[in-house]
Amino acid sequence: MPGARRAAGMHRPRPPPPEEPPALEDQDLLLAAAYVSDAQYNRNVPFETSPQAIRLYYFYNHWAMQAATYFFICVDLSLALFEEPALFPLPFLVTSIAEVLCLTAFFGRLVHFAKVTPQMVFWKDTKNICIMVTIVLTLVDLIVYGILEALNVYGIRWSRALRPVFLINFPESRQIRRAFRSIRNTLPDVLYVFLLFIFSVGTFSLMALKLFGDRGLKTVEGSPYFTNILDIAFELYVLVTTANSPDVMMPAYEFNWWYSLYFITYIIINTYIFMSVFLAVVYNNYRKHLKNEIRTLAYLKRRKMIEAFNILKVKVGTESVVKEAQWRRLVKVVAPDISSSHLELLLRILDEGQKGHVDKVNFLRLPDLLNIQVITINVKRHPLEAWMPRVYQSSASLLVQKVVRHRVFVWAYDVIILINAIFIALDEKNPFISYAEWLFLSLYIIEILLKLYTYEPRAYFGRKQFWNWFDTLIIIAALVATVANTTIQSARKYNSQQILDIVLILRILRLLRVIVSIQRFRVIVTTLINIGPTMLTFGGLVLVVYYVFAIIGMEAFHGRVHFFGPNSTSPDALTCGNSALRDSAFARGKYCRNNFNHLGSSLILLVELTVVNQWHILADGFALVTHQVAKLYFIGFHIVVVILIVNIFIAFILEAFFVAYSLEKSEVETAIEKKIQELGVGVQEEKVQDGRLIENMDAKDSGFIEDNKKKDLKGLYFRIASKKYRTVDALLQQMFESEIAPGEEGPSLEEILNFSPADIYPKNPSFENSA
Amino acid sequence: MPGARRAAGMHRPRPPPPEEPPALEDQDLLLAAAYVSDAQYNRNVPFETSPQAIRLYYFYNHWAMQAATYFFICVDLSLALFEEPALFPLPFLVTSIAEVLCLTAFFGRLVHFAKVTPQMVFWKDTKNICIMVTIVLTLVDLIVYGILEALNVYGIRWSRALRPVFLINFPESRQIRRAFRSIRNTLPDVLYVFLLFIFSVGTFSLMALKLFGDRGLKTVEGSPYFTNILDIAFELYVLVTTANSPDVMMPAYEFNWWYSLYFITYIIINTYIFMSVFLAVVYNNYRKHLKNEIRTLAYLKRRKMIEAFNILKVKVGTESVVKEAQWRRLVKVVAPDISSSHLELLLRILDEGQKGHVDKVNFLRLPDLLNIQVITINVKRHPLEAWMPRVYQSSASLLVQKVVRHRVFVWAYDVIILINAIFIALDEKNPFISYAEWLFLSLYIIEILLKLYTYEPRAYFGRKQFWNWFDTLIIIAALVATVANTTIQSARKYNSQQILDIVLILRILRLLRVIVSIQRFRVIVTTLINIGPTMLTFGGLVLVVYYVFAIIGMEAFHGRVHFFGPNSTSPDALTCGNSALRDSAFARGKYCRNNFNHLGSSLILLVELTVVNQWHILADGFALVTHQVAKLYFIGFHIVVVILIVNIFIAFILEAFFVAYSLEKSEVETAIEKKIQELGVGVQEEKVQDGRLIENMDAKDSGFIEDNKKKDLKGLYFRIASKKYRTVDALLQQMFESEIAPGEEGPSLEEILNFSPADIYPKNPSFENSA
Repeated sequence: MPGARRAAGMHRPRPPPPEEPPALEDQDLLLAAAYVSDAQYNRNVPFETSPQAIRLYYFYNHWAMQAATYFFICVDLSLALFEEPALFPLPFLVTSIAEVLCLTAFFGRLVHFAKVTPQMVFWKDTKNICIMVTIVLTLVDLIVYGILEALNVYGIRWSRALRPVFLINFPESRQIRRAFRSIRNTLPDVLYVFLLFIFSVGTFSLMALKLFGDRGLKTVEGSPYFTNILDIAFELYVLVTTANSPDVMMPAYEFNWWYSLYFITYIIINTYIFMSVFLAVVYNNYRKHLKNEIRTLAYLKRRKMIEAFNILKVKVGTESVVKEAQWRRLVKVVAPDISSSHLELLLRILDEGQKGHVDKVNFLRLPDLLNIQVITINVKRHPLEAWMPRVYQSSASLLVQKVVRHRVFVWAYDVIILINAIFIALDEKNPFISYAEWLFLSLYIIEILLKLYTYEPRAYFGRKQFWNWFDTLIIIAALVATVANTTIQSARKYNSQQILDIVLILRILRLLRVIVSIQRFRVIVTTLINIGPTMLTFGGLVLVVYYVFAIIGMEAFHGRVHFFGPNSTSPDALTCGNSALRDSAFARGKYCRNNFNHLGSSLILLVELTVVNQWHILADGFALVTHQVAKLYFIGFHIVVVILIVNIFIAFILEAFFVAYSLEKSEVETAIEKKIQELGVGVQEEKVQDGRLIENMDAKDSGFIEDNKKKDLKGLYFRIASKKYRTVDALLQQMFESEIAPGEEGPSLEEILNFSPADIYPKNPSFENSA
Repeated sequence: MPGARRAAGMHRPRPPPPEEPPALEDQDLLLAAAYVSDAQYNRNVPFETSPQAIRLYYFYNHWAMQAATYFFICVDLSLALFEEPALFPLPFLVTSIAEVLCLTAFFGRLVHFAKVTPQMVFWKDTKNICIMVTIVLTLVDLIVYGILEALNVYGIRWSRALRPVFLINFPESRQIRRAFRSIRNTLPDVLYVFLLFIFSVGTFSLMALKLFGDRGLKTVEGSPYFTNILDIAFELYVLVTTANSPDVMMPAYEFNWWYSLYFITYIIINTYIFMSVFLAVVYNNYRKHLKNEIRTLAYLKRRKMIEAFNILKVKVGTESVVKEAQWRRLVKVVAPDISSSHLELLLRILDEGQKGHVDKVNFLRLPDLLNIQVITINVKRHPLEAWMPRVYQSSASLLVQKVVRHRVFVWAYDVIILINAIFIALDEKNPFISYAEWLFLSLYIIEILLKLYTYEPRAYFGRKQFWNWFDTLIIIAALVATVANTTIQSARKYNSQQILDIVLILRILRLLRVIVSIQRFRVIVTTLINIGPTMLTFGGLVLVVYYVFAIIGMEAFHGRVHFFGPNSTSPDALTCGNSALRDSAFARGKYCRNNFNHLGSSLILLVELTVVNQWHILADGFALVTHQVAKLYFIGFHIVVVILIVNIFIAFILEAFFVAYSLEKSEVETAIEKKIQELGVGVQEEKVQDGRLIENMDAKDSGFIEDNKKKDLKGLYFRIASKKYRTVDALLQQMFESEIAPGEEGPSLEEILNFSPADIYPKNPSFENSA
């Protein structure tokens, strides 16, 4: 490694040059740092530039404030668990006090935001108006309901359906809002396809009425077949979801095989073609919208960096630059926990010629550089080596280390895991097998200890060592749970079912380790883990929609259907306690537990409706116990969740996979890597691939290197965290940034904030043609 | 219109200059024309250049020969209708003679092809080998089966499953082959995801066995719940298709609500994420593969045009060119029915400077120009105007024409159609309503007559006037059928059900007209019609797979399940004639008609399996009457059809929609349009949009213009057929052609034919990054 000597000198932090006193006020530095930090995290909150406002802004963005906001949102949403119809009932007074507390917190957060942001911007932002209106409405509802309650009059707590508004509208939930905006923008296009689809269903219904209505056919259950146009339309709508195929067709098919062609035509047109068109329209809009939003973000980032530059710049010759000392102070404010070696690396990249200042073009790259995770590798000795070098370097110890590092060691443990799987499948009652479980557990513990003996422990439990953490946690948890279970068993002669279940799940999760040893699988799993965070956005989106539908469902259907326990012998158990369900498919399928009697069961029922199958039986059941109009609730849920949200989810996964397939190193990453190479402080790719890193982890991310060959180089090494941890957003943003010319300043901050995303490039063929 | 006078002179065909005798042999011209025609239709069949071979090649590509080939393929495939188990049984001798006839035809076609193509190429082509092997195998099977039949030994006609090979492998089925290649190329990637998916299902099965196996739970039908690992794995596989949701979860959910989390996790991971990943992988490969194939086609086209150019070229100065006379003769051979005015237009475009010859770059554009449909508009008087001008131009007549052209006329008929729809929905027994039907019919006939009175009839029934044709055909058919029905009814006092059904369907199809009057709907419908032809490719693909599965299914399951007719009182009808089905969900659902007893019912059953719902009940039923192993047939069908083919279908629709969304005029079209404008013989866009074309048709395609304002311009006008009739293939091909530099010749013909598509650009980042 030729650059090693140079590198050895580099990581000593250079003292700041004493001849330059900080020319800028702290205030200006804080303002610039706020801009940079906004650019780094893609915040698009405008703020006032008065000293007090900046300090408030820092406080507003403090993680503790954000955590507190989310805490109150969680409390507010979970109140539904304690209000009638409740899983754990609490008196109205308690829940209402909790709700008022939450509202106060939201109001406080809003006031804080109002202090930070310019008045004009604050009042033009629909988010803030939404929150205020919702707070007022909730208070009104609380008071009205409280009075009605006191008067013993039945009231509806309708404002509960508004609670997700807080989750959506706080500035932190940008991702969920974006998904909602995406849906809103898709609506016009989807609407026309939907109307055409409804027209098609209507035409087919009319045809079915005429073709089958007068034939006197009977369904399997003996009721008349296709005699009422509304029933037909519902049945055909259900057929689009495939939930009643082929039952809906059987009576006609049995009568004359020719009629099956009617249904096949219907299925091809409405189930296959229309549903694909919905996906195409949703996907196309999603993609267009996503690109527009991210383009705006890229412009915003550029703009904020220019503002920051303008604050810090000084003239050197003809050029405006930022002095090195200022730059250091700025980075220290923006990223307080940056290591001095990392800071030095960044400076070397931005101040290529070591001129003592950073020019504008380079300055603009700072947020990207800060966003790239540079792993600082500290090549250290194993603590045991330091502690008792003689023993650790003995030939027996070296042999152990060699064995553990060998490929066969990994394979041996894969085989052990597979044998373990077979033992799990076998009967547990056999004492021999339950002893074997102890044997496996100890084998796994030995494996972890051996690895810790061989590899440096802090490196083994590095931040990106997902599978090491996974392994260790699973084993420790299994150990604790197994010991706890055995103790309980021997003390009280009784198996705790919960603990047994947990032990079992932990044991089976261990099998996942086999996947990690196969390269091809690891790639797929890594892609899935990579898109995980954004999938959580969809979790938020789905939660919002589920919550609203659950609240409405509980108000409409609670108490109509009862579940009498699995072993109930009550005659009412067969009709779910409601005689309207006698002989219905709902009762026959034993669906009594699928009800809206509390938030938990409502949410599970909504999941079942999302999966679609048998949803018509559930809809029929609830229509029987209330009114046929209830079916509209279920159809509405299907349209919103299955046609819109599930399609957006699929669009998102498709897009994420395409981006993942097209991963290339970005320009900024290349710059950093080049600099790392130049300075000779990199872990070279070849070395990584040379098999010197332990094989049972993802070599590209293992993040620590074997140290016995490098003892002489003791010092720091850098590596860029693997590209696979980048998000889809980040990738797209880089794409658009490369389109903005380095010199271009883009529209001004006010312009960007005022226009809709589509305004920036009203027509850009390159986005249309990218298919 | 300034260019009108020039244009008036243009469309008189210029006589070919007599001073230039055709210097080329007819043979060379035919060869060049064969190349150009290959380039135009994207054939990639190499052929020998000997005079005899070229004539044979023309004969080989003759439409009659192609039609005959398809006829024999159809006969061969439909033989399954007449062979045991048959819908219409015929003796073995008859079907075997028919099959031998077909095989002879296929062999003849192959020999013809061998005469045309070079020996080397012929024997290296797997298509030809496939056909020969299949012919031999089929003959062997026929002989063996014939002998067994004569000896009264039971034999299996296994070669019947090979019949689709002929459909796939004849050069004409390029599209189906491409779809199959696409699937084959996707297989490795899908396989790894599939293995991971199977691993996931296996892990969850093991967990389910341990969690629920010892609880003594019962399913709704009273059988033990989740006690056998194979049954669990099958149930969980079915859950991925959502067919048994939520039933499979109910026993565990009733026991403890906590267990529903197990199923929800399973559904999120396996149903949602894995199925989306399958779609993503299939789609990504489909796109990559499609682009590679089309890039090869673009190179091939370029190469063939260069070959043609090299045959025809003569030196003029330093430049190689094709003389105008040669060019005219060439185009006449390639497109024998081209109008002389169209020919003249093309020449004007390619020979910009009117130098009397076409240079190389322009020559290469010929196939694209030929592929663009230029509509020649012949502004003619209405025949009635010519016949009795006084009457036609009378004020009453002009008023009628004005009324018919008015927007309100269209609206009035929309209202009539909607009223008609209500009448159809009402009870038909009422004599008043059946009279009303006559009224509606006459109203529609009057509408068509009025339009024919107002618009020029040949223009009204122009080639692209889809909706006019649709209207007229529906009305005439309805008229004929209604009259026929009334005649039968009054003569024999009996309603023919078939005719009534047809009348009814025709009546309801008329409602579709309403869609066409709404612009937004028309756009969607046009896109769907546009992708229709390529969807037929999928029809072919699905047919092949269905046919193979149907033959296998008939051999395995025929005669096991019987259908006794809808009104049968036989006790066996309740168990479909097989006591193994007693108390099964199959018999309870009255699924007896879903069987493999002949090709028709097999295909319908396979459609039901494609729709997925209740497929586990069908699989269970056939497993009961044969063996549990039978389930593998159904799982295999699900994997092939639902996971692969349906996903490719969705990928295709998505891609088609994205391409449709990004429609831009191509360079060649722009050139033609520019020339048309220059020559002043175009129908200007503004005029078209000006509302002068009748409103009730697609204005952009109406292809004829109102003539009373243009009487003075009598003559020819050109318009480019709307871009929306272009196919996805054509659009993609244009994309790639624009990437090939005009001067570049690309690889040689032999090179292109010998390497796999991926070889051309082994790594081209621009295709990876286009997401």
